[in-house]
Amino acid sequence: MTTDTYPQKGFNTVNRYKHQATYDVETIHSIVNSTPVLHVSFVPDPSVPAPIILPMIGQMGLFPGDQARGEEGWNCYLHGYVSSRLMKLADEAVKRGEEGLPLCVAATKVDGFVLTLTPNTHNYNYRSAVLQGFATIVEDQEEKIWAMKLITNSVIPDRYNNTRIPPDGAEMQSTRILKLKITGASGKVREGVPNDERKDMKREDILDAVWTGVIPVYEKLGEPQPGPYNRLSGIPDHVNNFVQEQNKAREKHAFDTAYKPAPVKRVKKGEEE
Amino acid sequence: MTTDTYPQKGFNTVNRYKHQATYDVETIHSIVNSTPVLHVSFVPDPSVPAPIILPMIGQMGLFPGDQARGEEGWNCYLHGYVSSRLMKLADEAVKRGEEGLPLCVAATKVDGFVLTLTPNTHNYNYRSAVLQGFATIVEDQEEKIWAMKLITNSVIPDRYNNTRIPPDGAEMQSTRILKLKITGASGKVREGVPNDERKDMKREDILDAVWTGVIPVYEKLGEPQPGPYNRLSGIPDHVNNFVQEQNKAREKHAFDTAYKPAPVKRVKKGEEE
Repeated sequence: MTTDTYPQKGFNTVNRYKHQATYDVETIHSIVNSTPVLHVSFVPDPSVPAPIILPMIGQMGLFPGDQARGEEGWNCYLHGYVSSRLMKLADEAVKRGEEGLPLCVAATKVDGFVLTLTPNTHNYNYRSAVLQGFATIVEDQEEKIWAMKLITNSVIPDRYNNTRIPPDGAEMQSTRILKLKITGASGKVREGVPNDERKDMKREDILDAVWTGVIPVYEKLGEPQPGPYNRLSGIPDHVNNFVQEQNKAREKHAFDTAYKPAPVKRVKKGEEE
Repeated sequence: MTTDTYPQKGFNTVNRYKHQATYDVETIHSIVNSTPVLHVSFVPDPSVPAPIILPMIGQMGLFPGDQARGEEGWNCYLHGYVSSRLMKLADEAVKRGEEGLPLCVAATKVDGFVLTLTPNTHNYNYRSAVLQGFATIVEDQEEKIWAMKLITNSVIPDRYNNTRIPPDGAEMQSTRILKLKITGASGKVREGVPNDERKDMKREDILDAVWTGVIPVYEKLGEPQPGPYNRLSGIPDHVNNFVQEQNKAREKHAFDTAYKPAPVKRVKKGEEE
């Protein structure tokens, strides 16, 4: 990518807790890519300003064919419980000559519960990313298969090649992939030990009475359980290695985060939008 | 509650994988209540059908004052990174005489990765809930404190009374709670062992080559880590018991889910919207 930050403009600008905001492309993409379910929002009826949200699976990617044409911006490829309503709306938007259907995608990971002196200062250690853009249905068959592989391998690395492939005609027809061209993106990250306000930090009675600290939180992968028609003995390496490595990395991240210095608050009156 | 299911009407009706759909009030509320971060979607500019999503903390509740007035429907109380923009829009909607700002709230929990014979049939064991309704800012001070307590205790039971309370004047002023009156809700639940299509289940070569099973997934709470200004020795019971009980229950749920029979697919042509 030629740019390493997303531009700050309009609705992707974070106005609350600015010091926790990030526009770093790598950070935002890594949050999206490591979140097993993305929440995707769209407006089903343009005459009513009421959005709905669908849970979907997605992954950031730059299709080699796009790259060869000189495109540099990564897209978000979405799969999963893609309602036909969503597909129809994306299709209609393109037919009207628009860039696609306006979508918003959100990904949030909780890394810890931050327990402080008073309810108001309680917090999470967390990472969140929000993407905005225009979605179109991927029609190019080569790009579609590339995206299916990208998304399958995002759940378990190298899973795609360890299954029955390629997708047959019926599967290619029934599967649809949305491609979100990003027009704005932002992230927020909170890490570190608790922080409280000066008024409470001066109170000996409160400091003596309230436990403060962090409960680290991470997604744990349990021992893989063979299904009823599995014939293979033992767990294959691509599954086993993934579970071992992820558990080590996720636990480490949650605990590392719990020990970092607390963010310094720099919110001033009027800074919020 | 007098009704134990949400009505199926309009946009909350699940049209894809109907057999996984639920309108059960208790199921939907339990998914929302056990999700540490909810994704909240709204349309910032009614003339542009482009939604945005904010991560927020929330909890279902029926305020005793509402109950005393004969109200029976539970609301979703939202707190967290409540942008002033969101508050302003809710305020303006009420001033225009509308019911509130149209919001959509989504909660999804992943219980396992379901690894099948072919990429197309890969799945998650998961629970998701989507709420739609109209949001207003809670102005009643009694209801606001009640909601703050509800939300704090949703993160760690009994935490509220183990901190410096009540909130002071400045905290009451800076904290805002949104109350979402639910107009529609739906959920989806997938549990169980892998299931594959008949065409692949007949193929000896594929059954011999591909490992199938479930990787149970659950949010694990690590050993609580005291912060730099904590003075209490040991972890208090309300924190310790919560961590122990949750870890046991969450692990059990993920593994129980991995062993259940697979859902029987009953999707027919034309059933999808």
